[in-house]
Amino acid sequence: MSVAGIPLYRTCVAPEWIDYNGHLRDAYYGLIVSYATDALMDRLGLDAAYRTATGCTLYTLEMHLSFLKEVMQDRTIVVALRLLGADRKRLHAALELWCEGDAEPAAGAELMLLHVHQGATVRSHPFPATVATAIGELLESSRVLPAEVPASRSMGLR
Amino acid sequence: MSVAGIPLYRTCVAPEWIDYNGHLRDAYYGLIVSYATDALMDRLGLDAAYRTATGCTLYTLEMHLSFLKEVMQDRTIVVALRLLGADRKRLHAALELWCEGDAEPAAGAELMLLHVHQGATVRSHPFPATVATAIGELLESSRVLPAEVPASRSMGLR
Repeated sequence: MSVAGIPLYRTCVAPEWIDYNGHLRDAYYGLIVSYATDALMDRLGLDAAYRTATGCTLYTLEMHLSFLKEVMQDRTIVVALRLLGADRKRLHAALELWCEGDAEPAAGAELMLLHVHQGATVRSHPFPATVATAIGELLESSRVLPAEVPASRSMGLR
Repeated sequence: MSVAGIPLYRTCVAPEWIDYNGHLRDAYYGLIVSYATDALMDRLGLDAAYRTATGCTLYTLEMHLSFLKEVMQDRTIVVALRLLGADRKRLHAALELWCEGDAEPAAGAELMLLHVHQGATVRSHPFPATVATAIGELLESSRVLPAEVPASRSMGLR
């Protein structure tokens, strides 16, 4: 296994995530991606303490999932990150989901995340300086990493 | 509310789908999309009886989710379909998720689905004639429907 990204999160496949096809239901790949995003928030200092103190958090604007391999029960999933881009308020992240021990990834995901303040109305809000610095470092270390999964694209029958 | 698509599925938002942000977690929009896909399979004759009799089913190749509005607990979600395309083995579907009573959709989704036979190895497999006919009818009735949600696209900071 040669996971190309920055290790972010790992989990076992739960029995209740298996569908009538005998494998991990498509949406639960997305749940693993969602939990991995929580781990990214912790790493960047956007953790529960930050959220309580500031009223700020991340909202997901878009999530693209590419399903490459079936995943069976009791496998361990490792999620790796490449941060593809960022601006004052947004993160564009690529995640790969690998079954531990496999030679190829099981799925790829891309996310667009927006930093917001949750008040009476929800408004986009710039990252604080310490978080912006952590984002810059993660962007820098992502730049040298190869992509195992093709970039997201518009969907269509070709 | 003017849901543009073909009504496919409805569900209440479960308490366990709410995250630390106080709203429906991103991945559970995807679970609702996944359950709506099961409803589409039932409608096309790809139901449990078909799957048992033939060993054939649908696999999801790609899922794109666009999050447009927060969804709070106890809302009822209505899912509407437009079938965008099909070939001998694949379906390209657009779904809209609406909170019942709202004037705008809460989310859009696109799916690429592949018909497969699950044997010792999983192989793509043409739709049987009766299913192909049902797909043709759904394509025909989808053609006149307006899109409330923009088509999927490659992701990036612009």
